[in-house]
Amino acid sequence: MPDKVLNNFFQPKTIAVIGASESIYSYGTRFIQAQLDFGYKGKIYAVNHKGEKTLGLKIYRSLGEIKDRIDLAFITIPARFILETLDQCMAENIKAVVAFTAGFSETGAEGRELEKEVVKKIKGKARLIGPNCFGPYCPSGGITVVTGGEFARESGPVALIAQSGQLSECIIARAQGEGIRYSKFASYGNAIDVNEADLVDFLMDDRDTRIITQYLEGARDGRRFFDIARRNAGRKPHIIWKVGLTQMGATASSSHTGSLAGTGAAWDAFFRQTGAVQVSTLDEMTDATVAFNQMPKGCGLRVGYISGGGAGTVLGADACDSAGMQMPAFEKRTERKLAELLPGVGLSFRNPVDVGNPHPPKELLYDLLAAMSADKNVDVVVVRRILFSVKMSKIFSGSTAPSEKDQQELLEVPVKVMKKYRKPIVIILPDDMTGAGSIYLEEERRKIRDYFFANGIAVFMSEQRTFTALSHLAGFKMRNSAGKADDREIPAPAKNSRTRKLFLNAVKKSRTPILDEIQCKKILKSAGIRVTLPVLAASRNEAAAAAEKMGFPVAMKIVSPEITHKSDIGGVKLKLQSSADVGRAYDEIMAAVRKKAAKARIDGVSVQKMAQPGLELVIGMTRDPQFGPMLMFGLGGTSVEILKDVAFRITPLTRRDAKEMIRQIKGYRLLEGYRGQPPVDIGHLEDMLMKLSAFIEDNPEIKEMDINPLFAYRKGAVAVDARIILDE
Amino acid sequence: MPDKVLNNFFQPKTIAVIGASESIYSYGTRFIQAQLDFGYKGKIYAVNHKGEKTLGLKIYRSLGEIKDRIDLAFITIPARFILETLDQCMAENIKAVVAFTAGFSETGAEGRELEKEVVKKIKGKARLIGPNCFGPYCPSGGITVVTGGEFARESGPVALIAQSGQLSECIIARAQGEGIRYSKFASYGNAIDVNEADLVDFLMDDRDTRIITQYLEGARDGRRFFDIARRNAGRKPHIIWKVGLTQMGATASSSHTGSLAGTGAAWDAFFRQTGAVQVSTLDEMTDATVAFNQMPKGCGLRVGYISGGGAGTVLGADACDSAGMQMPAFEKRTERKLAELLPGVGLSFRNPVDVGNPHPPKELLYDLLAAMSADKNVDVVVVRRILFSVKMSKIFSGSTAPSEKDQQELLEVPVKVMKKYRKPIVIILPDDMTGAGSIYLEEERRKIRDYFFANGIAVFMSEQRTFTALSHLAGFKMRNSAGKADDREIPAPAKNSRTRKLFLNAVKKSRTPILDEIQCKKILKSAGIRVTLPVLAASRNEAAAAAEKMGFPVAMKIVSPEITHKSDIGGVKLKLQSSADVGRAYDEIMAAVRKKAAKARIDGVSVQKMAQPGLELVIGMTRDPQFGPMLMFGLGGTSVEILKDVAFRITPLTRRDAKEMIRQIKGYRLLEGYRGQPPVDIGHLEDMLMKLSAFIEDNPEIKEMDINPLFAYRKGAVAVDARIILDE
Repeated sequence: MPDKVLNNFFQPKTIAVIGASESIYSYGTRFIQAQLDFGYKGKIYAVNHKGEKTLGLKIYRSLGEIKDRIDLAFITIPARFILETLDQCMAENIKAVVAFTAGFSETGAEGRELEKEVVKKIKGKARLIGPNCFGPYCPSGGITVVTGGEFARESGPVALIAQSGQLSECIIARAQGEGIRYSKFASYGNAIDVNEADLVDFLMDDRDTRIITQYLEGARDGRRFFDIARRNAGRKPHIIWKVGLTQMGATASSSHTGSLAGTGAAWDAFFRQTGAVQVSTLDEMTDATVAFNQMPKGCGLRVGYISGGGAGTVLGADACDSAGMQMPAFEKRTERKLAELLPGVGLSFRNPVDVGNPHPPKELLYDLLAAMSADKNVDVVVVRRILFSVKMSKIFSGSTAPSEKDQQELLEVPVKVMKKYRKPIVIILPDDMTGAGSIYLEEERRKIRDYFFANGIAVFMSEQRTFTALSHLAGFKMRNSAGKADDREIPAPAKNSRTRKLFLNAVKKSRTPILDEIQCKKILKSAGIRVTLPVLAASRNEAAAAAEKMGFPVAMKIVSPEITHKSDIGGVKLKLQSSADVGRAYDEIMAAVRKKAAKARIDGVSVQKMAQPGLELVIGMTRDPQFGPMLMFGLGGTSVEILKDVAFRITPLTRRDAKEMIRQIKGYRLLEGYRGQPPVDIGHLEDMLMKLSAFIEDNPEIKEMDINPLFAYRKGAVAVDARIILDE
Repeated sequence: MPDKVLNNFFQPKTIAVIGASESIYSYGTRFIQAQLDFGYKGKIYAVNHKGEKTLGLKIYRSLGEIKDRIDLAFITIPARFILETLDQCMAENIKAVVAFTAGFSETGAEGRELEKEVVKKIKGKARLIGPNCFGPYCPSGGITVVTGGEFARESGPVALIAQSGQLSECIIARAQGEGIRYSKFASYGNAIDVNEADLVDFLMDDRDTRIITQYLEGARDGRRFFDIARRNAGRKPHIIWKVGLTQMGATASSSHTGSLAGTGAAWDAFFRQTGAVQVSTLDEMTDATVAFNQMPKGCGLRVGYISGGGAGTVLGADACDSAGMQMPAFEKRTERKLAELLPGVGLSFRNPVDVGNPHPPKELLYDLLAAMSADKNVDVVVVRRILFSVKMSKIFSGSTAPSEKDQQELLEVPVKVMKKYRKPIVIILPDDMTGAGSIYLEEERRKIRDYFFANGIAVFMSEQRTFTALSHLAGFKMRNSAGKADDREIPAPAKNSRTRKLFLNAVKKSRTPILDEIQCKKILKSAGIRVTLPVLAASRNEAAAAAEKMGFPVAMKIVSPEITHKSDIGGVKLKLQSSADVGRAYDEIMAAVRKKAAKARIDGVSVQKMAQPGLELVIGMTRDPQFGPMLMFGLGGTSVEILKDVAFRITPLTRRDAKEMIRQIKGYRLLEGYRGQPPVDIGHLEDMLMKLSAFIEDNPEIKEMDINPLFAYRKGAVAVDARIILDE
């Protein structure tokens, strides 16, 4: 449930600015100035320990002096005064506090301690955004950030949240030029109280917000953030610009906000599982937002493409392919129509279409766009290098350029076609000339762009940017319709199960943080996983007897809490065919262990029936510092270990997650049966992943787990070796 | 040797425009108009079968009527008249012809035939650019393309060649705004005579050209293009925007110019072997050109990065890492200096540096940039979000913004530091606000950019674009200094060798296009490759005798020209330990073959000593339609086959190619020795690749070759199976 108090940040009727001084350079005063410029309608109270007036407002000595009830306290005083200020805020029952001030965890250990004190002070009484943040901007609440006096006053359907204040400025400044208007924005800095999870939760329920956008360095509460993002998947587009995914970026990030940047694998899983839209540059963020903003109904993958020149068809096709979009063949009747409209221009009647030159007559452009829009195989029409610009045409065609009237009518063609056929049209409109002397061209370009924006047509700067933006749009739509609804259900948490008791018992008995193979397999078996169950044998004779009982061939391994790499020291013997083999192997193992690990405590050897050879797979589990437990699935074997053909998912898995992670690895073709090999039991592997997900969730003491190798067969699969490492 | 006649295209003293009519809409007349606008200094002659005058020039009925000697004929008449026009040109001894006219191979079979006729007409007499092209633009020759009347009149160090005319316009228009000026440009269309190889060859020797840029759909003469590009590698930066690398793009490309687009693997090899700079968008092309243009001395990989705000350090570090650049630790004294300059801002004294806000005092910025420039670990300094803009500062800081004078002085700081320390400084200068009402900001941005350009500082639009451009620059410099000079030498072609005779003999005898294993291995052995040499045995007894002679274990395989997948039908037996085993295996093979391939001609069985198990590798060879033979190297085994961990190189290989292709595969760690396995003999593998490269070059009848598996050992390697397929 989102916290309703968060609304105080965006629509406060009264604001106290603590730290506003007589100097116009103080951040408090600059914040007030920004509200006055922006047109804030509520009451602002300046608070400082000295000074009389600032910007025409009385300066109060303390919050206590103000008679009014304060919805929002905005704190700009130095960090060292924050605790006493918060005492005053709590005394006045203020529910919402923005701590603009920097100088906390981002500067070191002392700052981290101070943050802890701050949290203690407000816990259960108020919500705090910051410290080290810009705070909120919300046109409908009339509130803006300190540098946002000139931000747009109109509201729109897009929300933005970001740790960084400065980068948010860049995002908003850019977006506003591209026709985007905001419902709510918050820069939340170090996120010691209100964090990304709270804000996304709040915005998912906010009626004024249709699209959530986010700039993210690291998640403060990754687990909750994941849960919220996944629960809301498919409702509102959730665009996230995650930075710090490279090693270098992660280092720079942690020195900046003190938050841990996620590893690539965990974030990859996050995006796959939540369906949040991942973008990686400011341009991509802006373009994706433009796409969702301009095309609320979304679009599919199939593009009809038309270019005023042949090279543009190649560029378009390349960009389309790279973005994972499609250029299908037109319907036959469309091809016939286009062939009629474009006689003698080679294969131009096929998709992508080459008009031949950038100045088609308006009637021709209408007929072409109409034919493509009417085509059942096309979800969206993309138009490239039709020169809608009067001034550009003059440059390239001089005295032979079309008239201004013709150009104006050409401009209206896509709008008319879209109104009639109700199929989205998208225009690629680059800035062809970027010289200082060509600024008039850019001015005209922006006006053309805005004309299209105003008429519901999305406009982008290049082929690549167009197709990338459309792929986000199409991906969002597809993901929400793909697969069975059941597959998307998040499984209910397991209760205190029999397996849990078995596990806790093993933990209690274990002298090391690594559970031995026999313990692991007993537990996994109880969790529903097929295993080759080993028997512990304390002597040569016990080993032989156990082998006789289970049948040959058997494998034998040393059991010792101190020996983890058993085969390295000669502690493993495979393919033993008889009691005699078993006896000999026992002696050899003991001799090897005495030599290589003389001091290790020996519990005996494990004896187990050798599994039938099958396709060698691996399932593992590890803990991500932000998201907690993740399952891994992949091909086994040494060479594949190097090639790292594995997929990760954050637990608990949905059935869809299990299905997708198996199909994600490149080696999936081997699972389907390759070169005459039989296919393996993929349904069984999915079940196994679901069982392991529940098992992992139910037993939070597990830090890491390896089932390696796992042999998969035409029917079923068997865990041949397994290891569980406990959290200490 | 480049053809000197090509100079006629760029610096003609006289041009005949064949097809210029009285209508200003005719392309011939438009071409003349463009020359007049551009300021062509030579003489232009209009030629047409009708009309009196155009643009004040007399229209001649034929070339014969012109008394002057013509340097360049520019043909714009319809395709059907081209042959008779060329007759006239040849009669007048014209050495250079541009065929602007379209309607040739790009429209189908008839056009392809016409092109062949055209080539026949001019062969040995003249050079022709086109058809279906825009032709040349060369400021020093005063000549421009039909749409280029407004192109820059000043010359510069950059050359551009492209098949497409229209896209070249876009490239040039964009580049001019970014401070780039051209020496020579040619759009060469269908390239039936002058092609990319001729032009690059010419430009590599052209004194006015320091940087060669190229937009390329497909290569007409891939083999020569590769040879020239590789021969010239390291002399002049050679930037290539190769399109059509995706499946979709390749299809669109071939319908456009009739040229075959290269496959991804071949082009990957091309770029690795030639050191040409690969770019994939117009932005990347422009940025790379800006980098080489502004920084003629290049730069290394190590970046000192400074940002006016913390988030910018994360973005920079991410972009740096993604582009393969580095942000090294500063020298200790630099860190001390920075800590002094930026007290109390966390870890800002480390690389990347966070100034804290975008308005540093000019003295501070000077000291920071100076300290970073003086650092020995830094090759180039990158500056992000220091607000040099007066107008932008006012928006973000209102009445607290710095004065115009302060801003002007801030602007001069990077220039002053660079002059003093002679270390390149690069500025990231984005277009922060793109609204129609913010055009004045873009105007100012362009002026700031041009100020930096004029002072030798490169300017880019975003972090990503900056680091990508710098990585091209650094990559070019590094590549030219890396490795031993010997390793870069292209080996001399093999003479008629003993192996060649053996090969030709085998070809003559072979009844199918696939040479059998015994033949292949004899030939490979002669070429210096270690093989397990099989013996052909025609009977049970012969097989047993051969096995006894070579020692056990042996492998036995059916030998039949009609059976290629031997193991699928039971034609292969491995690990035979004794004569009895061999006899039994012989009978089983014969029984299986009789059952599964009753009609196949059987030559007998091959018997060979089993190789010691080693690391399983594969070496292959195939022919690329553009570049000819390529060698492939990779890991063997089924799973790796699916994961496609292989590297390609076009032959002949340099030693460097051989070294690099082995190290390029992800599985290289296995070759170095992984998890206690011994390393393999990498030097031997390099030698093997060199020998195979020579072998392949010497025997052009080979279409494909597989050495699979190749077992590699601590010392040496052995080809266990091999197959050669001949070109039919």
